[in-house]
Amino acid sequence: MSSEFDLIARYFTRPAPAGLLGVGDDCALFPVPAGMHIATSTDLLIEGRHFFPDVDPRALGHKSLAVNLSDLAAMGARPVGCVLGLALPQANEPWLAAFAQGFHALADMHGCPLIGGDTTRSPHDLAISVTIFGAVAADRALRRDAAQVGDEIWVSGTLGAADVAYRLLDGHLPADATLLAATRRALEWPEPRVALGQGLLGVAHAAIDISDGLLQDLGHILSASRVGAQLHYDAMPVAPALHGMPPAALTQAVLGGGDVYELCFTAAADQHDQVLSAAARAGAAVTRVGHITQTPGVVVLGADGQPLSALPRGFDHFPVS
Amino acid sequence: MSSEFDLIARYFTRPAPAGLLGVGDDCALFPVPAGMHIATSTDLLIEGRHFFPDVDPRALGHKSLAVNLSDLAAMGARPVGCVLGLALPQANEPWLAAFAQGFHALADMHGCPLIGGDTTRSPHDLAISVTIFGAVAADRALRRDAAQVGDEIWVSGTLGAADVAYRLLDGHLPADATLLAATRRALEWPEPRVALGQGLLGVAHAAIDISDGLLQDLGHILSASRVGAQLHYDAMPVAPALHGMPPAALTQAVLGGGDVYELCFTAAADQHDQVLSAAARAGAAVTRVGHITQTPGVVVLGADGQPLSALPRGFDHFPVS
Repeated sequence: MSSEFDLIARYFTRPAPAGLLGVGDDCALFPVPAGMHIATSTDLLIEGRHFFPDVDPRALGHKSLAVNLSDLAAMGARPVGCVLGLALPQANEPWLAAFAQGFHALADMHGCPLIGGDTTRSPHDLAISVTIFGAVAADRALRRDAAQVGDEIWVSGTLGAADVAYRLLDGHLPADATLLAATRRALEWPEPRVALGQGLLGVAHAAIDISDGLLQDLGHILSASRVGAQLHYDAMPVAPALHGMPPAALTQAVLGGGDVYELCFTAAADQHDQVLSAAARAGAAVTRVGHITQTPGVVVLGADGQPLSALPRGFDHFPVS
Repeated sequence: MSSEFDLIARYFTRPAPAGLLGVGDDCALFPVPAGMHIATSTDLLIEGRHFFPDVDPRALGHKSLAVNLSDLAAMGARPVGCVLGLALPQANEPWLAAFAQGFHALADMHGCPLIGGDTTRSPHDLAISVTIFGAVAADRALRRDAAQVGDEIWVSGTLGAADVAYRLLDGHLPADATLLAATRRALEWPEPRVALGQGLLGVAHAAIDISDGLLQDLGHILSASRVGAQLHYDAMPVAPALHGMPPAALTQAVLGGGDVYELCFTAAADQHDQVLSAAARAGAAVTRVGHITQTPGVVVLGADGQPLSALPRGFDHFPVS
C-alpha cells in the first residue's frame, strides 16, 4: 500500500491534458507551439535552507512551484508543464497529500500540469526539485541583458514582507506576533507574476524576478546589460505591514530582502503608459523606482537627495568566508 | 572568490550552442525542431541513497547525467539539453571541478549541453537533480504501453554487474577485490543507449530502461500494455565477471539487480533482423530473452523448461513495512 509507485500514483498522477504523455513512462512528452522556444528553469529546495522543517506542507507545495513560475514570468513565457523530484525522510501520507494539494492548486491556476517526477527516500533532509517549462517567442523574451540607458526601472507588488517574516521566524528579529501575522503570507504563499510577465512582452526591455533581494537581482540586469542604475528609496513600494520598523532593518528588508518573487523590469520612458496598462490588465500594481544610467553600479538616493551610504548585500548561499 | 555565482560560472557556464540561451538568465531557452515533441525526465539523486559518499566525483557527474540520458534512450528521443541542481554540504572546489568534468564529457558525447541550473548549500546530504530534454516525433516514440502479444523481448548489453558491485561495496556480499574490480565500472560509469533507442524507432514497439531490475522494469511494460511475458533464464546476457557466483546470488543480480541502464524492449518477431541491424549500427549488443504472452504476469523458465520458483523483487525506495 505504501510502495513508491503507489505513493506517486496516489498523489501525483492525474490525467494528462490533451497532447501530453504524463507521469508513468520513461519520459513525459509535450508539444511545443510552432515558432516558440522552450523556456526552462530549475530550483532545488532543501529543508533547513530554503524552508523551515515545520512549514505548512500545503504552502510548501505552493511555493515550490511558485518560485519556478516566477522564473517563467521574468522571461514573459507561458507555462506549459513541470516535473517534480521529491526526496523524503519518510513516507508521511498526510504530509504528501497536503503538499500535492498546494502544488496542484497553483499548477491548475496557471495551466502548468505536473507531467513527470521522481520520488525517493532521503537519509536526512527533505529535498524538492522542480523544473518548469514554458513557451515564448525567442526574439520577444524578456532577458537580463536588454536594459538600455534611460529606461525606467519598475517593481511589481511590494517589497520587504517576506524577508521580515523569515527573520522573525529564524530569530534574527525580536518576536512580534502581530508583525509575523502581517508578513507570513508573503513568505509562504508568493504569487508569481505570470500574467504580468506575458503582458510586458514588447513593452519591457529587461526583467528578472526578485529572489535574492532587489539590489542583487537588479545587479544581474545591470552587469548583463553593462549599465548602472539610480534608485529613489522613497519611491520603493514598501509592504504596508513594515511601516514603523526601525529604519536600518527596514532598508535591509526592502533593498536586500529575498524571497520576494515580484518582477523588477526596465522599459523605455516612452512606454510608461503601456507599462501601467499591461500591469492593470494583469491585476498587478507596479511602481517606478528609478532609471538606468550609463555609469556602472547602483546609487540609491534618500529623501534628502543624497546617496544612502550603507547598502545591504543580497543573499548568497556560499558567502565569501 | 567562492561566492555561489563564481562557483556556478567557473564550473558550469560554457558558451551556449547556437540557438540556445544558456546559464545566466531567469530561464534557459532552446528551440524545438518543427513537428517534434519534447521528451523530458527528471531524477533526484541523494548521497547515501543513490551513491556512496566517497564515490569518485567524476564518475558521479557522469552517472547523474547518464541515468537521464537513459530515459531519453528508452523513448527513442534525441538529446537537446539538460539542467542541473546541486545542493552541497560545502563548496569543495576540486570536487566540483571533477564532477563538472564527468558531467560535461558525457554531455558533449551526446550533444546534450547543460543550459541551466541551481546551486545551493545543503545541511547534510549532497543532492543532485538533473532534468533532461530530448526531441522525438510523438507518434514514433517508444512507449511502455505498446507491447503486443507475440513480440520478442530484448535486452541490450549485459545484466547483473552493477548490482554485484553495489552489494560488494555496501557489504551485502563478502569482500572480493577481483570481483569488485571487474564489476565496478558497470555501477559507476553506465553507458546510456542513446543511439540504440533512436535506432529502434519504427522497429521496436515498447521500451524501458532497466533502473530497478529487469523483472520490475519489464513489469511496467507488461502492466501498461496489459500483457504478460515468458522469459528464458538461460538466454539472459549475464555479465562475464559474474560466472562462478553462487546460483541464488546470480539470479538475484541478473533478474532483480538495478542500476543497469540497458534497454529492455519488445519488437514483432518479423522485425528480428531489423532489431539486429539497428543494434549493430548503434554499436550495442542485444539479446532476445523471451516473448510477450496474453497471460498476465512473468514466467521465467529454467534450463529444465520448468518455471523458476523464487523470483527476486526489484528495488523500491519505499518498501511495504
